[in-house]
Amino acid sequence: MSVSFVDVPKGSDFPLQNLPYGVFSTQSNPGKRLCVAIGNNVLDLSGVAHLYPAQVQDALKSSTLNLLMSLGNDAWHAVRTRTHELLLKNSELEHDAALVKKVIIPQKEVEMHLPADIGDYTDFYSSIHHATNVGIMFRGKENALMPNWRHIPVGYHGRASSVVVSGTPIRRPLGQTLPVDGQPPLFGACKLFDFELEMAFFVGGPGNKLGERVPVEEAWKNVFGFTIMNDWSARDIQKWEYIPLGPFTAKNLGTTISPWIIPVEALEPFIVNNYAQDPQVLPYLKHDKSFNFDINLLVSLKPEHGEETLICKSNYKYLYWTAMQQIAHHTVTGCNIRPGDLMASGTISGETEDSFGSMLELSWRGTKPVKLNGNLTRKFIEDGDEIIIRGYCERNGLRIGFGECRGKVLPAIPFKK
Amino acid sequence: MSVSFVDVPKGSDFPLQNLPYGVFSTQSNPGKRLCVAIGNNVLDLSGVAHLYPAQVQDALKSSTLNLLMSLGNDAWHAVRTRTHELLLKNSELEHDAALVKKVIIPQKEVEMHLPADIGDYTDFYSSIHHATNVGIMFRGKENALMPNWRHIPVGYHGRASSVVVSGTPIRRPLGQTLPVDGQPPLFGACKLFDFELEMAFFVGGPGNKLGERVPVEEAWKNVFGFTIMNDWSARDIQKWEYIPLGPFTAKNLGTTISPWIIPVEALEPFIVNNYAQDPQVLPYLKHDKSFNFDINLLVSLKPEHGEETLICKSNYKYLYWTAMQQIAHHTVTGCNIRPGDLMASGTISGETEDSFGSMLELSWRGTKPVKLNGNLTRKFIEDGDEIIIRGYCERNGLRIGFGECRGKVLPAIPFKK
Repeated sequence: MSVSFVDVPKGSDFPLQNLPYGVFSTQSNPGKRLCVAIGNNVLDLSGVAHLYPAQVQDALKSSTLNLLMSLGNDAWHAVRTRTHELLLKNSELEHDAALVKKVIIPQKEVEMHLPADIGDYTDFYSSIHHATNVGIMFRGKENALMPNWRHIPVGYHGRASSVVVSGTPIRRPLGQTLPVDGQPPLFGACKLFDFELEMAFFVGGPGNKLGERVPVEEAWKNVFGFTIMNDWSARDIQKWEYIPLGPFTAKNLGTTISPWIIPVEALEPFIVNNYAQDPQVLPYLKHDKSFNFDINLLVSLKPEHGEETLICKSNYKYLYWTAMQQIAHHTVTGCNIRPGDLMASGTISGETEDSFGSMLELSWRGTKPVKLNGNLTRKFIEDGDEIIIRGYCERNGLRIGFGECRGKVLPAIPFKK
Repeated sequence: MSVSFVDVPKGSDFPLQNLPYGVFSTQSNPGKRLCVAIGNNVLDLSGVAHLYPAQVQDALKSSTLNLLMSLGNDAWHAVRTRTHELLLKNSELEHDAALVKKVIIPQKEVEMHLPADIGDYTDFYSSIHHATNVGIMFRGKENALMPNWRHIPVGYHGRASSVVVSGTPIRRPLGQTLPVDGQPPLFGACKLFDFELEMAFFVGGPGNKLGERVPVEEAWKNVFGFTIMNDWSARDIQKWEYIPLGPFTAKNLGTTISPWIIPVEALEPFIVNNYAQDPQVLPYLKHDKSFNFDINLLVSLKPEHGEETLICKSNYKYLYWTAMQQIAHHTVTGCNIRPGDLMASGTISGETEDSFGSMLELSWRGTKPVKLNGNLTRKFIEDGDEIIIRGYCERNGLRIGFGECRGKVLPAIPFKK
């Protein structure tokens, strides 16, 4: 396996084979710049842009990844190949010590930002185990999956403004709930605050025009890369508001993504068979290419004055619908997608109880408290709790990691009229 | 009433008392610039920016309205007051003939564009007559309104990328439908294509931070101005996809807005009482200020080779929820709003059958064909049909118009695997 001149500690998320993209700044230079992660450092792409092909240099000097995303697959491959060359042992970069000093920066000295201007954010509902679990809780075993679920990659439009980068605190929301059917609704702090373990991809390529569809077999070209995500959810508020137009204020209070976008090329060694779909999907959703990934996903909860407990071990591969199907369906009526759009998987739950991707499922609607280290338990998230999501692929000694998606819950701001 | 040196024909939508904002370009200068409409002309704000207070000049030289929107209410008032002065008879502008020749441009020579970069687009469901009509059709008279409807200004996140300016053709979509319950779904062109008569406002002011609420009494400060809108809808696709997460591909195929944003100040003479709400709403939604407007809304349908027929006469004042309540609810859980966000009313239906704001209601789900001039009828929209929405306020000889929101439906593009 090829090795970088930049030290990559054993078990690092960011070997030379990963090269995830992010946007960073430093105290001494608060301008936002592109970078890739390598070991415990970043490579400042703005500082080495002149070493890349002319047609990508502007994109590498941008303050967001949108321009690079728009250039499409061939450009992404060219940039990645060149970055790999530059970071190899004995590269021309290594031999330019002054430049190395400028562009290789310890991660502990950088602040990470949202990697792109997110034009639109869409959240799918693509995990069959999650949809089934929620269905059983709310409608019983017989009617767990809605009739459309195996035919449509069900999704909804989310709120782009409230997507934030890992580390941003999340405020417990106030909102309307209906504790007792038939009684008037109440207003107050959310009592059933939850996380949702998700992954998301950023859309790349030039995008399609309004009125045109993206054919399912071509849709992989629109996937720039993947990130991990926590779709914070106010369950009690959601239950009262969501009929008939879907979740609204229960979901637009904050959605956290990790700062790193892992290129699809880095994930290719971890491709696995697509989830078997039964019944057959309609032709506009059918594709031969395998576009499913073996990505381990871990969720930990850390109480304010306690230690972390691992509360969920899941995997991206449990998703029923592929990203290619999600894109084909999203554009089937002619919706235009743009570079920088974010499309999330929905909660990723696995088959076993320890792989459920939300407190709602882990505590089975509050009936089975989740055990934490230090003799603590949780039904839902409490103030001061931090949720940490991590993800990695591992095979034959190669580890491709996703970094962390963290968020701490702050107490609600009391309401004053 | 004060009069402009620019001719304003009788019955014009755009007297000196209106001064709606838009973004335009010309053949000779394809750069996008801000303007206001005056009679049959526009005033190019980029060309007169130097005549305004220093702190708004950058905003007036911008290519979208976002910066002006962000400056807040005092700045909007200052710009409007100055524009009014400049366009008055005997103004310093009138006396500068060379400048007038440059900055007063006939509307027939300009192309209008989307007035702002829309960060997020939200669609509410605030007409009680529309919600009741749809409820009766799908659930019967007894359960017409959902239990949450009178407590929550129900809304959902829409798709910002597919909002287009008046005149943009709209493609009939293909999509998934379930013609027969229990049978497999089908794929094909939408058979129940519809318009929705809506109004929308653009968000202004600096916006709130994630985790903070906008108090309902303050929310009027976040309304920059109003526009008219057609929320194209594929009813058959919507019916199959929308449970449980709301409308998705049935609505993201295109949403048309008129090019003009009418400032709230221009609408003040037409303020009427808020709609009486029963039961009382929760305190976070309660406000004293009247923020309802008497705005006549007209919808016409023009077949490809036929003449226009007026098919709907409605009014903004029928809305149950105010824009202030919509904003307070949108931000109640801490969702941040940004200048340039678009928030729509939902279909605005009135009390009588000729005031229903969609073909679904006008034809009562296809059971009562709508009569058109030339012995034609329609249940839903056919290929080649153009939908034209117009709006105006009128009182004591003052007419404030909204211009037009037009869109022609093109035939579906056949599917090839």
